[in-house]
Amino acid sequence: MDFPDQPVPLYLQLAERLLDAIDQAAMEEGTRLPSVRTLAAQHAMSVSTALQALRWLETRGHIEARPRSGYFVAKRSKRGKRANGAAGTAGARGAGASRWARPMPELDAQARDHLAIAGAPAAVRLDLASAETALYPVDRFSVLLRRLAYQHRDLVGSHVRGTGYPALRAQIARQAMQYACELDPDELVVTNGCVEALNLALRAVARPGDLIAVESPTYFVLLQMLRALEMPIHPVPATADHGIDVDALKADLDRGVPIKAVVTVANCNNPLGSVPSDARKRALVALLREHDIPLIEDDIFGDLCFGQTRPRPVRAFDEAHGNVLLCGGFSKSLCPGLRLGWIAGGRYTERVKALKYTTSMATAELQQAAVAELLATGGYALHLRRLKAALRNQHKALREAVLRHFPAGTEVTEPAGGLVLWAKLPAFDGQPRSTRTLFERARAEGISFAPGHLFGEGAAFDDCLRLNAGNRWTSELDAAVRRLGELAMRAERSAH
Amino acid sequence: MDFPDQPVPLYLQLAERLLDAIDQAAMEEGTRLPSVRTLAAQHAMSVSTALQALRWLETRGHIEARPRSGYFVAKRSKRGKRANGAAGTAGARGAGASRWARPMPELDAQARDHLAIAGAPAAVRLDLASAETALYPVDRFSVLLRRLAYQHRDLVGSHVRGTGYPALRAQIARQAMQYACELDPDELVVTNGCVEALNLALRAVARPGDLIAVESPTYFVLLQMLRALEMPIHPVPATADHGIDVDALKADLDRGVPIKAVVTVANCNNPLGSVPSDARKRALVALLREHDIPLIEDDIFGDLCFGQTRPRPVRAFDEAHGNVLLCGGFSKSLCPGLRLGWIAGGRYTERVKALKYTTSMATAELQQAAVAELLATGGYALHLRRLKAALRNQHKALREAVLRHFPAGTEVTEPAGGLVLWAKLPAFDGQPRSTRTLFERARAEGISFAPGHLFGEGAAFDDCLRLNAGNRWTSELDAAVRRLGELAMRAERSAH
Repeated sequence: MDFPDQPVPLYLQLAERLLDAIDQAAMEEGTRLPSVRTLAAQHAMSVSTALQALRWLETRGHIEARPRSGYFVAKRSKRGKRANGAAGTAGARGAGASRWARPMPELDAQARDHLAIAGAPAAVRLDLASAETALYPVDRFSVLLRRLAYQHRDLVGSHVRGTGYPALRAQIARQAMQYACELDPDELVVTNGCVEALNLALRAVARPGDLIAVESPTYFVLLQMLRALEMPIHPVPATADHGIDVDALKADLDRGVPIKAVVTVANCNNPLGSVPSDARKRALVALLREHDIPLIEDDIFGDLCFGQTRPRPVRAFDEAHGNVLLCGGFSKSLCPGLRLGWIAGGRYTERVKALKYTTSMATAELQQAAVAELLATGGYALHLRRLKAALRNQHKALREAVLRHFPAGTEVTEPAGGLVLWAKLPAFDGQPRSTRTLFERARAEGISFAPGHLFGEGAAFDDCLRLNAGNRWTSELDAAVRRLGELAMRAERSAH
Repeated sequence: MDFPDQPVPLYLQLAERLLDAIDQAAMEEGTRLPSVRTLAAQHAMSVSTALQALRWLETRGHIEARPRSGYFVAKRSKRGKRANGAAGTAGARGAGASRWARPMPELDAQARDHLAIAGAPAAVRLDLASAETALYPVDRFSVLLRRLAYQHRDLVGSHVRGTGYPALRAQIARQAMQYACELDPDELVVTNGCVEALNLALRAVARPGDLIAVESPTYFVLLQMLRALEMPIHPVPATADHGIDVDALKADLDRGVPIKAVVTVANCNNPLGSVPSDARKRALVALLREHDIPLIEDDIFGDLCFGQTRPRPVRAFDEAHGNVLLCGGFSKSLCPGLRLGWIAGGRYTERVKALKYTTSMATAELQQAAVAELLATGGYALHLRRLKAALRNQHKALREAVLRHFPAGTEVTEPAGGLVLWAKLPAFDGQPRSTRTLFERARAEGISFAPGHLFGEGAAFDDCLRLNAGNRWTSELDAAVRRLGELAMRAERSAH
């Protein structure tokens, strides 16, 4: 896209200047670019703007990131034409692309791998975080939906007003009370899945160009979402033991990194499976309150933590401040197919409501009524116990299979709950293996997983992969993991 | 909000400078500001950026627009404190606002009237464009949903992948064939209502800061959406006879207005009820193709046009170019409560799909399956005939009541179909009447309608109102319209 007569954003001005420099100096592939900080200082702009410029060039294939080394000029073959970017390759992808006279705007490689996962499923689905249908109370919902479709048939014919079915909002608040998290039904907005909740939360607290801190690694839909919203990403290290590194975040804030909001998946982190201690959650709340920075918390896996007590969301430690926008949903724990999520907007509630109205207006109420009834009449606790028991066994079987079949030295998390495992492949001949090549080879054989590069920026986590433990353990699954392990043995570092 | 260490957008820099000037010169209320063009020239920026700055100041109450006169410094009492804008009034609105230690970010007056309409319904609902439940095939859906919830119970427990239930996408394409509009099921994405379709379309073709041309007056959700997306608005005149003025749009393009995309509600325009001729539709397509500007078409009222033949969407005239993103849905014609819409993305399909994934991931499939079955097994044509016959009668009764009860000289459209009437009040003592005051008085008495200022920028259309003809005509409704007419008699021009 170009921007005729419009004020060109600063980061694009810098990107253009860098591109000119690369072209005019005919820089060789592999030439190292100045550091982000140097660029920011040279061009009198913020670090985040300079980063945005580098990211813009990276996603268009002009430069590439190497972990802990910086940015380098990419291979000429990858760089394509100047004005249209990768447009020339558009014909090769996407349904119906050839129907139109002009190519479609481009997507970056990460977005394409991401959509490959999200699209037509492979035979063996180790990619998305989802449990199989048999683990959900589908018969119960069948009865509920049939009764509601009979008794409340007006739910089909009525214009949907407002921010969610009142009975469901009341039940969400009641559930949260069980783990001492006070939510006001009036601050709750029911959404089309937790993804919509996150999207609304981000847009309620930040604008395009605002820097958003996220855990690294983090949920790939969140990264894609931030890119789509043009909000630059500030990664904060996270570990499988403690989740987000609050000290690192504090150091960033102390040295003035202009973070506008922080997003965390605190409970049963995706992909690491971590649950921070209450003390760490308190510290995070206090730190962000001190800097007056809102926290967006994705608690969709909270109900799937294996421990004795359901961990409290970070939001529970932010008493009476309204600084945490808590997002949740039922797609992991109760009914993936109904696409129901919710957000408690705290002091951003009014903005969230206004944004919901112009993003999708309202959420269909029939399924909201069904979930409200199921929560009200009990049985959710029993269902959760069964689901968690199944997941715990599946986690164990999958983990053991990975350790058995994958290259010696592969590390696998022991998550505190949730649906996924995170694995790191050992180096091969001193070089990190790339799960991106592994991904392509495995998909050609009908096996899909989530390659690590989706969870970070540039080549970070390219030697990692996320595996879905939501499937019942079978000999077929064991065979698929064995095959994946064989392919991983020869997954040498790709040039990417 | 403030923007620590972030590059400040050009329009905000100008807004700040103007605010400084107003404060330092202690400008009197009512002082006229330089014209948009003068400001743009003085500050070496585009007209749209200057307009954005003025709009920013207007929504914060620092200045106010007067029709055909320009912008003026607002009353000091309305301007509030500098940094926090209207934050001081936040406590008075929004549920739970007082719970939080700090006020929530502000909404502008238009957004608040808009949310008042969208929120708790009034006793007499003449506000939103929606027909009453009895006019929709709710019994039919009740049977369908019960059968589907029994036969396809896995729809509850399955993770939803992809861009829409295949059978529904096929049916949407088949329906469109009936009016010679070729859609490829693979370019279709099923959305959470037509509002989500519009939101995805805008984000697929434009970025924050890009100027979007819309009909004036237009659908207020679209205006709110553009503001939320930070896409400045370029109004193009539209008439109840012919819809958008293609010549005016051409003149704008010829003189270089940097329009990035155009949005049209061509068939049964909301609020005007117009249907342009095929020749005008062809001219619009040709003009935009010439300038390589995408058209976003909202055809949600297309099936509700009263004429003999269902008018073709503009998209039908854009053969093999993929330049029109066609948005539709079933919330007006078939099942408001199911919140189903769709978009045919043309050559922007891949971007639309990627955005859908990070905006709400997917749309629940149970209701998609129900609509697909209803469309496949016929009966939609018969339902439409009945619905349109009812709407035609209701339109007639409502129009006659308005002409009977409203001040002499009130003008009312005779729409070609759809759900709404658009009325213009005559001047009072040479001054235009304000439907904004009328709105407040009527709501206090339980009567709600859509005030004209929602459909444009600033004070444009403040003397107009939109009335929903979706309700069965009753003596209560007649009494409500009579009361509204009485209130309108004394709706003198407000200072606003």
